[in-house]
Amino acid sequence: MESWPPGGSGPAEAGRRLRDLRGADLAASASLLSGAGAEAGCSAPAVAAVLPAGGSGERMGVPTPKQFCPILERPLISYTLQALERVSWIKDIVVAVTGENMEAMKCIIQRYQHKGISLVESGVTRHRSIFNGLKALAEDQPNCRLSKPEVVIIHDAVRPFVEEDVLLKVVTAAKEHGHNACEVFTCPEDGHLGFHVLAVVNNAAVNMEAAGAIRPLVSTVISPSVDGCLDHSLERARHRASEMPQAFLFDVIYEAYQQCSDYDLEFGTECLHLALKYCHIKAKLIEGSPDLWKVTYKRDLYAAESIIKERISQQICVVMDTKEDEEHVGHRLEEMLKNELNHVKVTSGRDLQQIILEQCYNFVRVNVMTSDFEETQKLLNMLEESNLSILYPVVVISDEQKLQESLRHGATIIAALIKERNSGLIGQLLVA
Amino acid sequence: MESWPPGGSGPAEAGRRLRDLRGADLAASASLLSGAGAEAGCSAPAVAAVLPAGGSGERMGVPTPKQFCPILERPLISYTLQALERVSWIKDIVVAVTGENMEAMKCIIQRYQHKGISLVESGVTRHRSIFNGLKALAEDQPNCRLSKPEVVIIHDAVRPFVEEDVLLKVVTAAKEHGHNACEVFTCPEDGHLGFHVLAVVNNAAVNMEAAGAIRPLVSTVISPSVDGCLDHSLERARHRASEMPQAFLFDVIYEAYQQCSDYDLEFGTECLHLALKYCHIKAKLIEGSPDLWKVTYKRDLYAAESIIKERISQQICVVMDTKEDEEHVGHRLEEMLKNELNHVKVTSGRDLQQIILEQCYNFVRVNVMTSDFEETQKLLNMLEESNLSILYPVVVISDEQKLQESLRHGATIIAALIKERNSGLIGQLLVA
Repeated sequence: MESWPPGGSGPAEAGRRLRDLRGADLAASASLLSGAGAEAGCSAPAVAAVLPAGGSGERMGVPTPKQFCPILERPLISYTLQALERVSWIKDIVVAVTGENMEAMKCIIQRYQHKGISLVESGVTRHRSIFNGLKALAEDQPNCRLSKPEVVIIHDAVRPFVEEDVLLKVVTAAKEHGHNACEVFTCPEDGHLGFHVLAVVNNAAVNMEAAGAIRPLVSTVISPSVDGCLDHSLERARHRASEMPQAFLFDVIYEAYQQCSDYDLEFGTECLHLALKYCHIKAKLIEGSPDLWKVTYKRDLYAAESIIKERISQQICVVMDTKEDEEHVGHRLEEMLKNELNHVKVTSGRDLQQIILEQCYNFVRVNVMTSDFEETQKLLNMLEESNLSILYPVVVISDEQKLQESLRHGATIIAALIKERNSGLIGQLLVA
Repeated sequence: MESWPPGGSGPAEAGRRLRDLRGADLAASASLLSGAGAEAGCSAPAVAAVLPAGGSGERMGVPTPKQFCPILERPLISYTLQALERVSWIKDIVVAVTGENMEAMKCIIQRYQHKGISLVESGVTRHRSIFNGLKALAEDQPNCRLSKPEVVIIHDAVRPFVEEDVLLKVVTAAKEHGHNACEVFTCPEDGHLGFHVLAVVNNAAVNMEAAGAIRPLVSTVISPSVDGCLDHSLERARHRASEMPQAFLFDVIYEAYQQCSDYDLEFGTECLHLALKYCHIKAKLIEGSPDLWKVTYKRDLYAAESIIKERISQQICVVMDTKEDEEHVGHRLEEMLKNELNHVKVTSGRDLQQIILEQCYNFVRVNVMTSDFEETQKLLNMLEESNLSILYPVVVISDEQKLQESLRHGATIIAALIKERNSGLIGQLLVA
């Protein structure tokens, strides 16, 4: 039996994996501890995230700022928030948006039922927006539900495919400060992130209080002269592109922003640089995956849409009238669909609510004996009431005498519709 | 009446625009010349292009090298070759491929009827592949149809969206050497590129014999220390990503490759750097468009596919039975389609061959009075025999009594099918 719901590389899956491995992690860390002979400690740091989202999107060449551009009718930033809020140990997410976009952002939070989000007004530059986000976290006010975290993640609203894995790596590296190396685990009770102090490292100060994701350079970087000619080119292998997420001990990065010059706030682009310049700390660089890239140009929106389409088109739930249909036609259709899609679930409807809760985005209703669409309408209503925004109701399979052939063709049509999500075909009768 | 065929930003259009403007250019250059009082000269340099295509595509994470990955069933490199061969003044294109892929490359050239392509075996690194391409151009052998060009363009097989505009800019800048500034034009007779020497520039040696496209950096570039921490970050505004195409006086870049060390051939990534290091020439940097980006990761293939889909879905040819149908139903459908697509042409079939020659990729056949599909089959045969690889035959409009409404819905379906190119729907009857 295949596991359900699927989603091998999704954030939710990463979370589950971590929790499943928790027992083994703890055992391993215990054995390491006894070997190293160091004092063991366990702390559960509060982790928050700041998302600057005040950009105007001028590079995109479209009037809508890129973080609000729709992908399959849902704004890009909503995918990023979803990726972050699925990580159980991120307690607060502070988003910095322009005053102009504040209401739109509130609507997005409500529409997609995002949780744990606070909004602050962005500044005129990226650094000023981040600073505003940090200020909101620093100010321990009675009426404010935010409290100062130990570690803060800084991420971009336009990097929607961030995985729990890399978030964990940057947070762990940022926490690996003072004299200690840590091992990380998630707490059984509340999903908090915990750290075991593993060992004193060489008795030397590591001073690692920041970390950020990097990627290899795709193009060689050059430096132009004032007259627009090549001055020199940089050795590609010795440089990296600094990406997001980054993580910092909160006090360190807040201090850096407070001390930072106006010039840096206006023209700087790199948070790790501020931490290094103003707080003299070392920043650990973590190799990230290609999916961390920043949605910058129109082509990046296309790429993001294709990636999302691919991810959500891998699973389908086939809803049959009766248990008998499920066993007869349903399972034969399942076999056909498995040639086209990774995860196929057939049900006669009892566990539908659960499947919707698990965020399956694709449903096919098959009527074998009846041409009564009342049950289909019920399914449509149920889906419309859910918060699955990327839905798309279609498909009738004409179940002819040549069942096998008909099912095979039906599976091809279903897969094609799911993969393309072509809304121009709603209401069409397609014949298998 | 709209111009036909369309394609505002396509390479073919750029070529036409250049030729159309030739008269005006010549007049302008004449007036400039008389103003400057310098001696006028006109030369028609031979321009060739070298395309290293020996990469293994390991960054893509797929077994097929990325230059051979299919986009809408056509290999990526074929789009790049198409973009280059549409430029009338590029006389030869030398492609460097591995011995292993030599036969596949020959098939691609034959299948897509590419002209003026020569193949050489690639080296183990990009620089060695380029060097092999240059050697093939340098060797003036009696049996070889290649001859040494004055200017050589170096481009990547995985940058399919290069425009004539930027090619012209890098070639012009590379030719702008010695003491002269030039103006460029295309010769009326043969489409050769010509240069008018405009003026002696300050009597100082410009020594510009190379030029390359650049783009702003998307991410900050950093330099890691040996222990994987941030050593320093580079000021983003002072650096650029070096992209392709680049152009060189042939003798200069060939000399540079001949003198170049094994280390540079193995580990170097930048041709402009070689020209600077070994021939001490200045390289002009030209701002390129975002579309110059290099297809590197799987997401870039998605983006390229979307861009190609968008480009080829902007035009459609509606084929009617008779002149009467064309005037009655055809033009009403045309109005509807114009809400969805940029360029709509209605014909009753006389000029079909011409439209196919002009590389329209989308055809709809409308039967008003008959349900006889003989003519439709003829159209399909004609299209299959053409070299339009990205075809996709579908669509029947059910012409009901409520003509207006039916046409509107038909236009929506047609546009959706064209934009998605969903082959799973071939043979379906869609009802408008």
